[in-house]
Amino acid sequence: MLEHFKVPNDIAVKVPIDRLRAVTEAVFMKCGVPQREAELAADVLMFADQHGIDTHGVSNMLRSYVNMYNTGVMNPDPTFSIVKETASTALIDGGGGLGLMTAPKAMEIAIEKARESGSGIVSIRNSGHLGAAGYHAMMAAKADMVGWCMTAGGKSMIPTFGAEPQLGTNPIAFAAPSDKEPTFMFDAAMTSIAGNKIGLANRLGKPLGAGWVANEDGTPNMDGGAASSFAANSLRNQLPVGSTRELGSHKGYGLGVMVDILCGQLSFAPGFSDLALKRRAHFVAAYSVDAFGDAAEFKSNMDGMLKGLRETKPMPGHDQVWYAGLPEHYEGIKRGEQGVPLHPEVVDWFRSITAEFEIPFDLV
Amino acid sequence: MLEHFKVPNDIAVKVPIDRLRAVTEAVFMKCGVPQREAELAADVLMFADQHGIDTHGVSNMLRSYVNMYNTGVMNPDPTFSIVKETASTALIDGGGGLGLMTAPKAMEIAIEKARESGSGIVSIRNSGHLGAAGYHAMMAAKADMVGWCMTAGGKSMIPTFGAEPQLGTNPIAFAAPSDKEPTFMFDAAMTSIAGNKIGLANRLGKPLGAGWVANEDGTPNMDGGAASSFAANSLRNQLPVGSTRELGSHKGYGLGVMVDILCGQLSFAPGFSDLALKRRAHFVAAYSVDAFGDAAEFKSNMDGMLKGLRETKPMPGHDQVWYAGLPEHYEGIKRGEQGVPLHPEVVDWFRSITAEFEIPFDLV
Repeated sequence: MLEHFKVPNDIAVKVPIDRLRAVTEAVFMKCGVPQREAELAADVLMFADQHGIDTHGVSNMLRSYVNMYNTGVMNPDPTFSIVKETASTALIDGGGGLGLMTAPKAMEIAIEKARESGSGIVSIRNSGHLGAAGYHAMMAAKADMVGWCMTAGGKSMIPTFGAEPQLGTNPIAFAAPSDKEPTFMFDAAMTSIAGNKIGLANRLGKPLGAGWVANEDGTPNMDGGAASSFAANSLRNQLPVGSTRELGSHKGYGLGVMVDILCGQLSFAPGFSDLALKRRAHFVAAYSVDAFGDAAEFKSNMDGMLKGLRETKPMPGHDQVWYAGLPEHYEGIKRGEQGVPLHPEVVDWFRSITAEFEIPFDLV
Repeated sequence: MLEHFKVPNDIAVKVPIDRLRAVTEAVFMKCGVPQREAELAADVLMFADQHGIDTHGVSNMLRSYVNMYNTGVMNPDPTFSIVKETASTALIDGGGGLGLMTAPKAMEIAIEKARESGSGIVSIRNSGHLGAAGYHAMMAAKADMVGWCMTAGGKSMIPTFGAEPQLGTNPIAFAAPSDKEPTFMFDAAMTSIAGNKIGLANRLGKPLGAGWVANEDGTPNMDGGAASSFAANSLRNQLPVGSTRELGSHKGYGLGVMVDILCGQLSFAPGFSDLALKRRAHFVAAYSVDAFGDAAEFKSNMDGMLKGLRETKPMPGHDQVWYAGLPEHYEGIKRGEQGVPLHPEVVDWFRSITAEFEIPFDLV
């Protein structure tokens, strides 16, 4: 709900989700991605674009994916393999493909194992950018399970009391099924703000908020201000959620390390034993509600809890209290009707890439 | 490492851990707890007292447990039962006993299931106060597994934009094994500060910090100050970690709801479908490292990561960077040698309860 990051209404080009999906699939296929995989990748991106998770939609990510395919950083047609498995666990090698498609396939394995033996815990290595982690967690919720998805990699989070970044933003996504209430879907970086939001603020010329990044010497910046007033490397010195030790930054930092362990250590991915190395890995898990009790009763109980949360008496200046997934639910309905608001610059990129790839451009 | 909360050195009475353990066991047994259970309960409390987790040691908790047994709120000799199970999951009914003893028994089941089928996921209902969640997570780490422990219940956390508390402080504990480096053990409330720390600050006459609680109308208090300057109900209006929406309080709040779901919904515990009702439940899980790869390699990789974290260049004013579990490790060594520093008032309580229970008093 950060209006801060929305494309201004007067310049936004509203594109119907089906058209955006079709052109996105075509772009992936022109990069050498097989059709079924291209459909899956587009579905993950459309999930983000439809539900207002703009940091992980086509605007921020698609050109970066195209670039990774063109430069050989990502394999468009990877071999996905199970390195090791037990009744309730698996370690997956993604074959150097995008996490966008690796994670849903890993989650399918987790769901299948949870159906058979109660839970499915899957770590994933050799896999690129994940897309919106919430998509993968939601797969479990749709199968009447609680689901997790996490990803670790890169260097953006500065540990509490540290002066250099050592961890990624390391998001945690979690979803659980309900009946009538919109699904609870939590998806958040363990830094005070998602990394892409700093890039987005930069692009839209918005200031950085207090508590987002550290100053050059590592001390938490609690003033914020124009990106240009920060040293360049400060923009990658993101603070853990909590921002300062006094406000609880050791909690965001500790959860960030936990994500590194579940993704990187549990997948034995290269680079996680030495913070100086480049690294990336993911984690998904599903726990079957049926294994614990009646799924219909669970979903009805969830309804009661979620209704209670959104009917919480609000503080002054607010009409209501939200829960994770509720704003995305409403945004999904709105954008389903009105289209996805794209920045004209993004529409221009689509115009040029479709020309280059010789595929139809029909977004506007 | 909040010196803020330590008993001042000039008045602290240092008690050897073995003496404190023996008298604690004797107190539990006089409450009707069988010997093995009393030993287990004392072990959980000693873990907290030795490692500096003073909010969950004898000073804050033991008299409350005695009171719960005396008034019949807790059953000293409960029937522990498995309500439902699969190869990798179980739902436990704690029989109305303290979580202090229920959770380790549930974790034993999780570990056993993880040995057999890769993972063990256990939800627990009808069980009282958990003690230090880190203890239970550490059981998994000692068995070469990664381990979780969470607990939900009570009303202390105010949702982002809310004006009334709806969730507990809902801590998450997580541990993972290493070889030479002290074990990574994260254990933190999803509020900006543990609930007991507000009581402790009150008792020691220390001010509340900025970002800990909301004002009476629900707006985050970012000034802090003497407890007496807050409305009485504000002390139970704890802010989620992140404190304000701008700093990321929706992350602490969302993780808090996740804990409610894993503990309360997944155990079908009464009260979790209606926020107006009284409720408490726990969750433990263990994932076997062996299921994913070689445990020795995992622990060596963990060493590399943990060493990298504590060797992070520190920010000005700090000698080093810590990771979760490292301060507790050093404190454990120190208190093992020098004893547990108790407030004289706590020693007086032991003097009177041992007299009442007719057991020897030999703490000093």
